[in-house]
Order: sequence, then structure tokens, then C-alpha cells
Amino acid sequence: MTELRRKPRVAFQGERGAFSEEAALKLLGSEIDLIPRPTFDALFTAIHNSVADFVLAPVENSLAGSVHWSLDLLLESNLQITGEVVHQIAHHLIGLPGASLETIQAVESHPVALAQCERFFREHPRIKRVVAEDTAGSVRAVIARGDRSHAAIAARRAAELYGGKILREHLEDHRENYTRFWLLAPEAARSPAADKVSLVAELAHKPGSLHRALGAFAHRGIDLLKIESRPIPGQPWEYRFYLDLKARPEDPAMKAALEEFGQNADRVHILGWYPSAAGADAAPSTPTSARS
Amino acid sequence: MTELRRKPRVAFQGERGAFSEEAALKLLGSEIDLIPRPTFDALFTAIHNSVADFVLAPVENSLAGSVHWSLDLLLESNLQITGEVVHQIAHHLIGLPGASLETIQAVESHPVALAQCERFFREHPRIKRVVAEDTAGSVRAVIARGDRSHAAIAARRAAELYGGKILREHLEDHRENYTRFWLLAPEAARSPAADKVSLVAELAHKPGSLHRALGAFAHRGIDLLKIESRPIPGQPWEYRFYLDLKARPEDPAMKAALEEFGQNADRVHILGWYPSAAGADAAPSTPTSARS
Repeated sequence: MTELRRKPRVAFQGERGAFSEEAALKLLGSEIDLIPRPTFDALFTAIHNSVADFVLAPVENSLAGSVHWSLDLLLESNLQITGEVVHQIAHHLIGLPGASLETIQAVESHPVALAQCERFFREHPRIKRVVAEDTAGSVRAVIARGDRSHAAIAARRAAELYGGKILREHLEDHRENYTRFWLLAPEAARSPAADKVSLVAELAHKPGSLHRALGAFAHRGIDLLKIESRPIPGQPWEYRFYLDLKARPEDPAMKAALEEFGQNADRVHILGWYPSAAGADAAPSTPTSARS
Repeated sequence: MTELRRKPRVAFQGERGAFSEEAALKLLGSEIDLIPRPTFDALFTAIHNSVADFVLAPVENSLAGSVHWSLDLLLESNLQITGEVVHQIAHHLIGLPGASLETIQAVESHPVALAQCERFFREHPRIKRVVAEDTAGSVRAVIARGDRSHAAIAARRAAELYGGKILREHLEDHRENYTRFWLLAPEAARSPAADKVSLVAELAHKPGSLHRALGAFAHRGIDLLKIESRPIPGQPWEYRFYLDLKARPEDPAMKAALEEFGQNADRVHILGWYPSAAGADAAPSTPTSARS
């Protein structure tokens, strides 16, 4: 008997055709099974509940900031980061195959997407805005209803998936709208291409403790790609620092730096070693080298 | 002739009854004129367009993270921070005066609010979720329609303003949902109670530059309350650091620290000196003392 080889199942938050689905395909190619999950809680329990092998979670948007929700759930989980991808959030106007922009009377989408396309609605005051629960879901609904005077705002993938026609590209007011995602897995086998690490540290409540801790990396010329402080929920005087560093796990300088850093921290939690996103260095939203 | 003394006009983003309106009243009391603005762009141009004297802008949410949108628009504006307030985002179920939870069949609100009340909808599977463009606006609509089987999820202020009845308090899944707001004004007169400063710095692209720059504060025992790095849009290899520090502007150690910090930075932009929020130290979401 030959073993049936199953495609890897990748869970993402949202409906089929969401921006997260585009990001999953960009990172992993089309030979995957895409598992949509309605909520973040459902996303982060997808592997434990045996409905997925990987989770793709948004961690940062260039306009909206870090997604603390994902960071918190990741910390509570037993998952590790095994990869990352940076994806541009491009909002397209999607209608029925026979429709055209001139005849559209109403456009529906998630309110955040509608709010990111203010200019389009200012330039087309005759078009009514209609709120919907989901970007991709609004494309599905528009196509299903078959009314050519209605269109939706969503990712290109939603048009492909539901048979919609792109009536106008790039409705977004700000082109520099990128979301960074992490690919998560339990006890991930570390990629030989891993050149980046993300970690969370809790530091002592003393002046200068961050400065002292960062010295471990600074003195060795190790790049700090991103840093963010955040109070620990429920512990008013305690803080967590989220750090991204550019280094290979086998680099002796990095090993020594992590050991020294650990001596200056109350707790260090390695979220994962992974290859930094292709093209991430050039994307405006992607923290690349803030320098330690 | 006596001069007519006008109440200060305070612009906020959203509809009347929004969480931002609650935050404005908490910070400034009721002797203000509240000016709702539909978008962030409209909010940040409200003073320039002479429709407001102050702007109250959200800068950070304990679940969603920093509001980069506000940080970017503040940097482009000529406004200064003159105060801050931390406000708990408490989602209440609001219906018509004669309604009760038992007879509610549909609940409407902004999708983000609906998503933050998952538990409520799981426990009441018979209740339909209806998306709306705004939390407070959905209360206004429910009251106007007069259908007792419909309710909305919004801030307590929306119930007071539109004559709704709170059918159930605290529908939110996570109680620790706080938003921090800054009060902004042009060339603000500095409050004598100012004990906090927010600034943005651009650092040289060299390893260890952040560590070196932070030394200015660390060596003098000055508290770093928050730190966040962010790539400069359109300048892939350049970074901005947003810092909140606890210090009085007239403190000689702080003056020396800022001078030394400036020597290690390409550019420093002081966003404002202001009194730190009352109770902010105890709020889990409020960066208080990450320590430099």
C-alpha cells in the first residue's frame, strides 16, 4: 500500500478569497489546502483541533500597526514561527462579468476596506456604500445575487474564486498598505535558510534595563529589525518587549548574544527562527533594520 | 460689549456617541462642544479648517496595537500633544426602552465590535448578527426604527444620547480592551503638570545606534515608557522610533539627555509635553514604564 500524500492544510482568518488567502498562496504556492477560520480564536486552535497543519496569522499592518491579538494568542499557544510573508493590501472593485463602473450604483465591503477607499467614493458620489461582514464574502454575495448594478471591494483572489470581474484596480487611498504574516506550526523543523528570529522578553523593572539588555546585540553588531514594548495584561508594572533580530541560529556571536541577553532579562521566549520574507527588505511596511 | 466665550470645540473620529466621544468627556468634562468627523483625514484637518479647537485622536489600543494612521497624520500636521486619556472599550447591548434581551432577534454593530463579542453570540445562537458602519450609528438606527426585536452594540454614551436602554453590559470577550487617545492642539501652551514627552527620532543606519541613543536616558535614570520602531514609508532602509518618556520639561537631567540623544539621532521631532493620563499607570493597556 502506498501512503496517500496529503497537501499541507493552511488555516487563515477570514473567508475564502481573503487577503490572508492571497498571502498564503504567495508564501507557499498553490499546492496547499486552504482552511478558512471565522475568528482568531478558531485560527489559533486549528492545529490543536486537527483541522490544519499550519496557521498563517497577520502580525502587523503598515497603517493599523501590530496585531496584538495574534501576538497574544501566539504566546499562549505551543506554535513556532517557521516563515513570514509581506503582502500588499490592494483593494479592487469587483462586479459581475457583464458589469461596468458606469452602471454601478452600490458598492459593498467590510467597513475598514470602505474607509480605505475614501477618494473613490468622493469621486463617485452617486455610488452608495453598503457595509458587509467580509471583503471576499461581499464578492461572493454580489455574484450570487446577479445584480449588475452592485459591486464589492476585495482582493483580486476573490474575483478569481467567485467568477467576478475587476471593474477598477487599486481603489485604496494609500498604496503603501502592507500586512506582514507569520506561518506558524507546532515544534517546527527549523529551515536551513533561517536568518531571522523573533522573541519576547520580560525585563526587570529598573531604569536602563532595556539599554543594558540591547547591549548584548549592539556590541556584536547584530541588527535589531524591530522593537516594540507592551505592558503585560493584568500586570501593570511589568513589560514585554517584542524583538526581531537578523541573525543565523548557528552564528556563535548570536548564541553568545542571546545568552548575555537572557542574563539581563527575567524571561525570554523564542517565537521562532525563520527565513525573512523575500522582498521584505524593500517593502515600506516591513521592519528591516532598526539596528540594535 | 462683552466677548462671547465659546466652549472649546473638540473634534473626534466617528459618530456622536462613539467611544472617542466618551474619552473626550472623560478627559475634558461636559463643558465642550463635540465635533464628530467621519474620517481620520477630516479629523486631522478640523483645526486647520476652523471647525475645531482641539483634536482627540486614538493612538493605541491594547488589542489592536498602535494606530499608525494617527501617528503618521500627527507627524505631517503642525499639532502638538497637550494631554492624554486612557479609555476602556466596553461594549454594551442597547435596545429600545421597552425591549429585553429575551425578545431580541438581531443585533447590529460595526464588524470589529461584533467580532469582540464572540462569546455573546455563541451563547445566544438564535440572535442574528447584522453589520453596520458604526457602533453609535447602529444605536441611532435601532431607536429610530422602533423595532423592539433589534438591538445594537455600542458605548454607554450612545444609549444616553439616543434614548436607548442598556439590555446587557459588557458583551466584550476581553475586558482588558483599552484605547489611549491624545488631545492635540496647534502650538499648545504647555501644561505646568506636564510630566511626559512623546517624540519621534530617526537614527543613523548603523548597528547599535538605538542602544547608543537610549544611553542618554538610561544613564540618567529617565524612564522610557514606550518604544516602537517603524520603517519610514517610502524610505526602505530608514527607521523612525516612537518614544514616550517620563520626565518634566524643566528637569536639567532631561534637558541634558535630550541634547545627548539629539547628537546620536539624524532627526528628533518632539510631539508634545503633557500630563500623563490619570490612572494610566494602573491600566493594563497603558505603557507606563518600559524603562530606558
